[in-house]
Amino acid sequence: MTKERLYLYDTTLRDGQQTQGVQFSTAEKTQIAEALDALGVDYIEGGWPGANPTDSGFFDEAPRTRATMTAFGMTKRAGRSAANDEVLAAVMNAGTAAVCLVGKSHDYHVTHALGIELEENLDNIRASIRHIKDQGREALFDAEHFFDGYKDNPEYALAACRAAYDEGARWVVLCDTNGGTLPEEVGRIVAAVVAAGIPGSHLGIHTHNDTENAVACSLAAVDAGARQIQGTLNGLGERCGNANLTTLIPTLLLKQPYADQFDIGVSREGLAGLTKLSRMLDEILNRVPMKQAAYVGASAFAHKAGLHASAILKDPSTYEHIDPALVGNARIIPMSNQAGQSNLRKRLSEAGLSVEKGDPALARILDRIKTREAEGYSYDTAQASFEILAREELGQLPTFFEVKRYKVTVERRKNKYDKMVSLSEAVVVVKVDGEKLLSVSESMDETGSDRGPVNALAKALIKDLGRYSKALDDMRLVDFKVRITQGGTEAVTRVIIDSEDGKGRRWSTVGVSPNIIDASFEALLDAIRWKLLRDDA
Amino acid sequence: MTKERLYLYDTTLRDGQQTQGVQFSTAEKTQIAEALDALGVDYIEGGWPGANPTDSGFFDEAPRTRATMTAFGMTKRAGRSAANDEVLAAVMNAGTAAVCLVGKSHDYHVTHALGIELEENLDNIRASIRHIKDQGREALFDAEHFFDGYKDNPEYALAACRAAYDEGARWVVLCDTNGGTLPEEVGRIVAAVVAAGIPGSHLGIHTHNDTENAVACSLAAVDAGARQIQGTLNGLGERCGNANLTTLIPTLLLKQPYADQFDIGVSREGLAGLTKLSRMLDEILNRVPMKQAAYVGASAFAHKAGLHASAILKDPSTYEHIDPALVGNARIIPMSNQAGQSNLRKRLSEAGLSVEKGDPALARILDRIKTREAEGYSYDTAQASFEILAREELGQLPTFFEVKRYKVTVERRKNKYDKMVSLSEAVVVVKVDGEKLLSVSESMDETGSDRGPVNALAKALIKDLGRYSKALDDMRLVDFKVRITQGGTEAVTRVIIDSEDGKGRRWSTVGVSPNIIDASFEALLDAIRWKLLRDDA
Repeated sequence: MTKERLYLYDTTLRDGQQTQGVQFSTAEKTQIAEALDALGVDYIEGGWPGANPTDSGFFDEAPRTRATMTAFGMTKRAGRSAANDEVLAAVMNAGTAAVCLVGKSHDYHVTHALGIELEENLDNIRASIRHIKDQGREALFDAEHFFDGYKDNPEYALAACRAAYDEGARWVVLCDTNGGTLPEEVGRIVAAVVAAGIPGSHLGIHTHNDTENAVACSLAAVDAGARQIQGTLNGLGERCGNANLTTLIPTLLLKQPYADQFDIGVSREGLAGLTKLSRMLDEILNRVPMKQAAYVGASAFAHKAGLHASAILKDPSTYEHIDPALVGNARIIPMSNQAGQSNLRKRLSEAGLSVEKGDPALARILDRIKTREAEGYSYDTAQASFEILAREELGQLPTFFEVKRYKVTVERRKNKYDKMVSLSEAVVVVKVDGEKLLSVSESMDETGSDRGPVNALAKALIKDLGRYSKALDDMRLVDFKVRITQGGTEAVTRVIIDSEDGKGRRWSTVGVSPNIIDASFEALLDAIRWKLLRDDA
Repeated sequence: MTKERLYLYDTTLRDGQQTQGVQFSTAEKTQIAEALDALGVDYIEGGWPGANPTDSGFFDEAPRTRATMTAFGMTKRAGRSAANDEVLAAVMNAGTAAVCLVGKSHDYHVTHALGIELEENLDNIRASIRHIKDQGREALFDAEHFFDGYKDNPEYALAACRAAYDEGARWVVLCDTNGGTLPEEVGRIVAAVVAAGIPGSHLGIHTHNDTENAVACSLAAVDAGARQIQGTLNGLGERCGNANLTTLIPTLLLKQPYADQFDIGVSREGLAGLTKLSRMLDEILNRVPMKQAAYVGASAFAHKAGLHASAILKDPSTYEHIDPALVGNARIIPMSNQAGQSNLRKRLSEAGLSVEKGDPALARILDRIKTREAEGYSYDTAQASFEILAREELGQLPTFFEVKRYKVTVERRKNKYDKMVSLSEAVVVVKVDGEKLLSVSESMDETGSDRGPVNALAKALIKDLGRYSKALDDMRLVDFKVRITQGGTEAVTRVIIDSEDGKGRRWSTVGVSPNIIDASFEALLDAIRWKLLRDDA
């Protein structure tokens, strides 16, 4: 059976750039465009040439792509010809194969925002599309505020679309600019547009997530006949974001009726790279990836409930709507106070600890975790601390060393230039193989900045652990998370430390105490013990 | 016209607790239950009594609510009577007015996960619902995997629902447990259930966000007749989360056809508190609020594009689907323009500072906030620190006192009973009215517990501030939040301290430094200054 073609139009580099706090550089735009092309989208909207130096710079050196590179702009202004509108000229001069122009389709915006006659706006749309076609380019028309406009004045909203279509626009894109239209309404209105004579094969849909329905609205438009979807990676975009292509792509490829009905140009290989692509974009933007993101989030296939987790072990399809590997993601079965023994055995075996079913140590470990969680500990992410705890119960944790005491001093005073400066110092006393070792460190780094008391404590502890010090040479702390939580009836501090070593390992440990320094020290001790378990041959 | 009643069933405290990394304490559960009740939801699912100490503890002292408090559990197991199932007994013993039991409705899960006969499962459902009804409670049945089950074996899925309904279940809740069903399919299947004889007034919908369609699926179910929606605040929940009530509530109250058709028990006042409630939950969980969240996100009404921003100034409805004030949110227009200054004046007047339009101090304050935010500060919640900063720029901040230096010691060693104990000590040197004052405190509280270095530092600072000490007598720290954030190119620690006084005031201050003690000290200083501004007559 031949599948129908459904087109993906990516606007990460244009509408995605409207996200609060997002500002791409030209180099970043190029990198993202190349990744989008590898993914297999059909159109890449690169920006608005002439609107700002970054967008202009991108088009000056736009990468060669299989996808149709598209410049964005607006329909010509009133009172001048298309050829004489310098804003439109800048867009045309980018020389892209396709040009997408936004124009008004809501009568209120024509008369109030533009302040021109309704008919004049239709003329502007016609002249602009004709101008693009005359230059041999593919023309797209973004009908701004289309759905709100249709609800107020359907004849005019349709007339604006028809003006573009009749002049030869390849696509008329119906935009829910303010994001307030619900899916049922989108479907109904798109069907009305098709019924009014613009074929679905020339209709695009552009939605925003202001009611959390951007994906559903896009699907409703496709159900009603539209054959182009506009969206962004990770749902970037102004306000609540645009329709999320990172969600739509797997839905279209893996879910019915779409999977059987459409070909979307993204291959199975492209799909398998989706999680990586999503994280790459977050990395470029220095954003924390959204754990709960559909398909690609770190939690998207994380199972916490004991009942679910044990069923997952038997048959993953019982609690997973797709195989996470299809989108390049992975299953996570974390520990929690609701975890069952089968869940626990699985996690132990991931740590290389094989424990027989029914071993009484399993119940002891679960009890200990429950008690600890009631005290404020959390083992969801702190897999290394979980392993240390389990090994203790199993009698498989060497002593390594004993901490006799430590002392940390934090001081803030004026320096000789009358400037307030702070400095921390840590002294640690440990016993290794019967020998008492004292070491001291301060918190100043190479640049002369104070890195704080936990840093000083970590340095002092690692500095002299006798025969273990060598194994710790390549270990460093890469992240440190703190939260105040409830431990029994009191507020306590929970610290999670992420460590890394030269062998590319990364592990997380947890410590809890009313005293933040002490909580950090506990997490640090677990981190060191875990490293010694792995490296101390 | 009389509106139809649509019921909201909140499961933040049960399914929301399945979110990776979320672990509520009993006190937090109580706080959230009270907030949900004030919001106006109809049911509060408090947890699974007997499954873990936190849930059991919550029901032991559950708050009295107008909403129907509901205990969650599972249908009785095979091979014993409902009365003799101790898991079910623990649920019943919580003594709630309503009990919701999850049971299988997908034949594959009955035969493969439970390993029992299909008919036996139906018997278990019937007996369990009857048991709840016999005890005079309201019964709810969560039909697990209902949509996947219906697609595989519609007769059996319906039979499971009918078993519960026929025994008197007030609600049969159709669950899309794995979150993979799309809105069109949900609508079609719910309509089929109604057609099969279970009235919509007894049907609930429970969806997950694995395809970003949880909200749309809930609406599709309501369109098809279901009259109860289950969801969570901020869309908490396992994997990608549950249907987000924070989005559904404003959609149902403000959008058609729902606004005219339904009464949902949440008032306009409740709606106006939604943004605050959403942030409160994030604060309890120490999660970074999602800026792009629909309705309540900090970016939900942020306008970046020049064209949009200038149109917004003329008429907000041009680029906003609702008035942000309806949900207690606010419009954000880039700080640099006129609108930024009018926002600032509004916030200053909230702090009792009246500044004329066009005063050059406004631009200076905006600049300073921008610089500080780039360093890692955040003034969203730290209104008291914002006021201190503004007063400094306006020349309206008295010096009060000067800190010359401080020193904090954290020590951990064995006590005379050979037990490891920790203790902190803080020395603070200040100058008040030309006089140098030294004070010292330790971190031990009345019960002999170490409360940590920040506590010791706060006590020492407040203890001797000369003529100011009296005004600080009734001040205490009630919360302390720590986050590692980006300050320029380095990771820094941001501390937010909430303080309270005997006059019922509560205020928040912020401090930032690579050194956590120093960041805390800065927030503490602001807290004391703010209190003195109010009380030092």
